[in-house]
Amino acid sequence: MPQPAVAVLGGTGHQGRGLAQRLALAGLHVVVGSRDAARAAAAVAEWPPQTRPSTTAAYASAIADADIVVLAVPFESVGSMLEQHRAFFKPETLVVDVTVPLTVTGGVLTLAEVPEGSAAEHVRARLPPPVRVAAAFKTVPAGLLGNGTRPLDCDEFVCGDSPESRGRAVELVRAVVGLRPIDVGPLPRARAIEHLTLLAIAINKRHKVSDARFKVMGI
Amino acid sequence: MPQPAVAVLGGTGHQGRGLAQRLALAGLHVVVGSRDAARAAAAVAEWPPQTRPSTTAAYASAIADADIVVLAVPFESVGSMLEQHRAFFKPETLVVDVTVPLTVTGGVLTLAEVPEGSAAEHVRARLPPPVRVAAAFKTVPAGLLGNGTRPLDCDEFVCGDSPESRGRAVELVRAVVGLRPIDVGPLPRARAIEHLTLLAIAINKRHKVSDARFKVMGI
Repeated sequence: MPQPAVAVLGGTGHQGRGLAQRLALAGLHVVVGSRDAARAAAAVAEWPPQTRPSTTAAYASAIADADIVVLAVPFESVGSMLEQHRAFFKPETLVVDVTVPLTVTGGVLTLAEVPEGSAAEHVRARLPPPVRVAAAFKTVPAGLLGNGTRPLDCDEFVCGDSPESRGRAVELVRAVVGLRPIDVGPLPRARAIEHLTLLAIAINKRHKVSDARFKVMGI
Repeated sequence: MPQPAVAVLGGTGHQGRGLAQRLALAGLHVVVGSRDAARAAAAVAEWPPQTRPSTTAAYASAIADADIVVLAVPFESVGSMLEQHRAFFKPETLVVDVTVPLTVTGGVLTLAEVPEGSAAEHVRARLPPPVRVAAAFKTVPAGLLGNGTRPLDCDEFVCGDSPESRGRAVELVRAVVGLRPIDVGPLPRARAIEHLTLLAIAINKRHKVSDARFKVMGI
């Protein structure tokens, strides 16, 4: 089977950069999608050679050419970005939502309420039905992802709107060395995964570390 | 410092039994609190000798004599139980909430909405202010807890309504061999911990295991 073409939207951002780099290291055809393709091209030229994407592109063309679109843009902008670009998705595209709706309420980091239930369902609601949606890469620490020499050594939780979506997202996670995919079921489970991200960040702050992440014991 | 007297309410139930047994194995003074103390006494007489509590008691007297009250009753009944017994708590008592509001919606296991935000906040709202509240033991698998010969080998997430509450709950978790306490901050973080329980059960069902549980990497 040919390798899928993976567009990482927001691929020069906090979580997106390391994800694009690790997927490129895995040998996948990676396109970094950005609002400004020229600026993205300048950014990725600074990356270590083996971590550079195949190319950079504006959102619309990155989406149009992709088999898998990874959403690594901030949660706050993902809705409007999808509404502006929904016509560009091929019907069979798998969208992998990486966003987490973090917010600070009364000085305490928490998850923002999302009317649809989770960020992944927020994404699902803004895409044409034939496009498939899964959630993954929500808990692996950005700093660790973006440091290609350090082992990831953790599990990544995957959920999705169909068994096929989950299967494809599981394969994508498995392509990244050091990540074990854990299928946790239907798309609304994304909310639980987003809570895990919150816990990881809380643990980082409280225990003065930067790469708290999870492993499942017993499987 | 003298060991605290720990009442485990619902201590013959699914999660409570293993918890009472592991705390007794740790050498703590454990009272199994039950709606029916005589039935509880008959139940614990069947447990392996070193896992038996010091005594059994009805809820009211178990609460009145405890330094720490562990709530291992079903979430559905914890509110009414607390409302009936709130006068029995000593002011300095630490209440450790173990409950998880699981429900099935449209055939999918999920967390029930809780008006207060989480089960732990539901508990907090039903206790006098001087009583302290923490959440712990929400993710360690009941079956594993109740099998005293098997290593737990996982992390347990703790949150609470004050640094002192968290510190006391952390010590209680640490008393159980094989559990590492992870302080994740203020009480509303309990919702994230409850989501972890949901994920563990989902992983059990999906991966045909029974003891899925978590470890934090990177600390």
